[in-house]
Amino acid sequence: MKGDKGITVKKSQDFSQWYVDAITKSEFIDYGPVSGMIALRPDCYFIWERVQAATDEMFKKIGVTNTYFPLFIPERLLKKEAEHIEHFSAEVAWVTHGGKSELEERLAVRPTSETLMYEMVAKWVKSWRDLPMRLNQWNNVVRWEFKHPTPFIRGREFLWNEGHSIYASEKETMEERDQILGIYHKVLKDYLALPGIIGRKSEQERFAGGIASYSIEHMMPDGWAIQGPAWHYDGQKFAKVFELSFLNKNEQKELAWQSTYAISTRELGVMFAVHGDDKGLIVPPKLSRIQVIVVPIYKSENSDKVVKFAKTVASRLGSLRSHVDDRDGYSPGWKFNYWELRGVPLRLEVGEKEMASGRIVACSRDTFEKVEIPVEELEERAAKLLDELHERIYKKADRHLHSMITKENDYKKMREILEKKGGMVHAPWCGENMCEDKIKEETGAKITNMPLDQSDLKGNCIYCGKKAKHMANFAKSY
Amino acid sequence: MKGDKGITVKKSQDFSQWYVDAITKSEFIDYGPVSGMIALRPDCYFIWERVQAATDEMFKKIGVTNTYFPLFIPERLLKKEAEHIEHFSAEVAWVTHGGKSELEERLAVRPTSETLMYEMVAKWVKSWRDLPMRLNQWNNVVRWEFKHPTPFIRGREFLWNEGHSIYASEKETMEERDQILGIYHKVLKDYLALPGIIGRKSEQERFAGGIASYSIEHMMPDGWAIQGPAWHYDGQKFAKVFELSFLNKNEQKELAWQSTYAISTRELGVMFAVHGDDKGLIVPPKLSRIQVIVVPIYKSENSDKVVKFAKTVASRLGSLRSHVDDRDGYSPGWKFNYWELRGVPLRLEVGEKEMASGRIVACSRDTFEKVEIPVEELEERAAKLLDELHERIYKKADRHLHSMITKENDYKKMREILEKKGGMVHAPWCGENMCEDKIKEETGAKITNMPLDQSDLKGNCIYCGKKAKHMANFAKSY
Repeated sequence: MKGDKGITVKKSQDFSQWYVDAITKSEFIDYGPVSGMIALRPDCYFIWERVQAATDEMFKKIGVTNTYFPLFIPERLLKKEAEHIEHFSAEVAWVTHGGKSELEERLAVRPTSETLMYEMVAKWVKSWRDLPMRLNQWNNVVRWEFKHPTPFIRGREFLWNEGHSIYASEKETMEERDQILGIYHKVLKDYLALPGIIGRKSEQERFAGGIASYSIEHMMPDGWAIQGPAWHYDGQKFAKVFELSFLNKNEQKELAWQSTYAISTRELGVMFAVHGDDKGLIVPPKLSRIQVIVVPIYKSENSDKVVKFAKTVASRLGSLRSHVDDRDGYSPGWKFNYWELRGVPLRLEVGEKEMASGRIVACSRDTFEKVEIPVEELEERAAKLLDELHERIYKKADRHLHSMITKENDYKKMREILEKKGGMVHAPWCGENMCEDKIKEETGAKITNMPLDQSDLKGNCIYCGKKAKHMANFAKSY
Repeated sequence: MKGDKGITVKKSQDFSQWYVDAITKSEFIDYGPVSGMIALRPDCYFIWERVQAATDEMFKKIGVTNTYFPLFIPERLLKKEAEHIEHFSAEVAWVTHGGKSELEERLAVRPTSETLMYEMVAKWVKSWRDLPMRLNQWNNVVRWEFKHPTPFIRGREFLWNEGHSIYASEKETMEERDQILGIYHKVLKDYLALPGIIGRKSEQERFAGGIASYSIEHMMPDGWAIQGPAWHYDGQKFAKVFELSFLNKNEQKELAWQSTYAISTRELGVMFAVHGDDKGLIVPPKLSRIQVIVVPIYKSENSDKVVKFAKTVASRLGSLRSHVDDRDGYSPGWKFNYWELRGVPLRLEVGEKEMASGRIVACSRDTFEKVEIPVEELEERAAKLLDELHERIYKKADRHLHSMITKENDYKKMREILEKKGGMVHAPWCGENMCEDKIKEETGAKITNMPLDQSDLKGNCIYCGKKAKHMANFAKSY
């Protein structure tokens, strides 16, 4: 570790290189031997564990139950829903051999589990009494992407939740939308400090096999958008294919109604990208394995005394997750850099001066602002500083997001904005695939989503000039 | 569900069929479309979640950190350790295609992650300061078994923890053994109510690629043994292959010392098999999604009143996980069977009589013993009944385990015991592969393990008559 130079480029100058530096030199991830597949190291996996726990607790409260379904899907099943297989077949990893034997049928490593789950669940659902059935699994999925991989953002394996609900009516199914998106929104805001735009995907961008998709869209530091968690309304489309039906209260057979939803480890990448700075990562306090790093500042003659005091200071932090960096042979400055790179949100500096005064210097990771805290107030004040940091980085991200949304109804100006400034252009759209395609072809921007709040809908389609049906956000998107 | 006949055979008469009935008709698992791969349904996955949480909490307390490593292992890596690949190659599921393209190199779906992890970790470990590095992951693994699959017991995919530690000395590594086996033992006893024999595996039965394996061995109802959680000492064998070295305090390069350990979903199968009875499953209270089922007993004219009272009763159960089965159209008796099949440990029966007297009938799942509890004492008394049930089923399993261990030093008698009674024969052994092989060939019994407590070691090898080096347990084993 000694001699490791940390981040070599400025975030504003070379975002891509900065991103890779920040997540690898912090020892958060490492590249595996298979391209596009990464290892999440302890400080990083800790974050996913917390995100998962927070989300899962909210899921359980609304009646979602966890399950585990097999990793492999027989090819014949994956092919059952035509649009689904058309979309996913290009990126399926196929298992063809078991030991030395060739398999009779190829098996897909799940890219998502609709086909396998619904084939099985169709046997479980018999009557309206069995519904709703709200199943979820936290698992790994594989999508054999051929584009250039970027850790978390575009890879060949990721971790996620896949929620799959089965309802007895369309109404109940649709009511789930705001419930689930509300949970995701809360997790993003309260844990990852990430803002996003909730809206409906266009018909061409929706989930393959479903009817309508709703997403939360983020803004990256480079002005590109990126899709976050999503909820998909599947109607009875899969139910028809997999004969997933139930006896209703009149003892009549009826097709079930379905939805699916997911949040994935991609969010970790968005979070690292959005909050980090030239010194490295900034991890929101609720997700940081170490919330407060205590750095003793000593000379060889007083080291024992100061380290002992530093440990007392740490013990004063109560339930906050703290650590005393008492490693010998490293200067305080080196340790500051070390923990800044790793995004620890609060640092306490403890030396002879602090011992004498009983006032500890606390430094916030985002602003580097220093305040002095009396030892006896440490737990409360440190907790408050952490909360304030969370608020600040959320607001900063939110300001950035909104500063990157430009309302526009002139196509020429839209092209200029997308070219020079980037971000999202919020514009009226007629709803036709052709205009969406043309805009994408000419500007590289797709529709990220159409915000749920459509109260500002007016005017004509920014491309064809016909009456607009939606206000849509257009952006270059990861 | 109505009309479902539940379990069709007696556990004592046809254990295999009973086992499959018990876990499928209870809706705990279902067979997937790929042979040997099952789905864990909500009540069942809940159990794994609790086992995982309990184990993980103890792991974290001793400094184990969680991670996630890629699912796919390139063939060249898996081949690096000769004994390892020799053992696992026969049961690897191979990915050969991504989308429509054939891959340049086959990828193994991880059967276990040593080779991939150590290749990566070798880059992370630089100096003694980085050690110990105690990594763990909770994940899924695939082993393409060709033997007849049995859910949990022998399948092609299972969930587990794989702990991988890297130490700077042999001494520290070996100290981990009792720490980890102690955690597994505690989880088995306190959560799954499962006893087991802790001991060392024979050289021929140890983990492929390691130096010594230690396991906890269980006894199934049919007198066959089954291996539970294990801890493996790998010495420097993998470190040598993967050049996993560190600079010691004298700035000299030294190979690291390693261990691995695991507990898997197999334990759920053992637990279902051991505790269940002719009525179905018996789930230990700490693991049951519903701990107390409240069944209202009413006629149509008083249903509202009784159901309302049943809900009051449930609310008196405090933090215990309870549920009121107020489904119309099913008789109390049908509901009793329904929840007995699903192993809910405690039932409260609530009718007019109970309303009048304020005393509720509580029935324990294992003994069917009924006691009356005054409403105001419900939480405390129900919790106590649950604790007592846990104690009883643990002790029953422990008695069965020990009743199935026969100490013997005559080979002829040993054969008789293995043939007629089954279980484990505890016998002196010279330590030679040949005797182990011959016994296996002639009796079908292998060495499950050699108990850690060897204080009863004496006499001569039960097969060859040479001086015994170990007391070993021989059993037919799953």
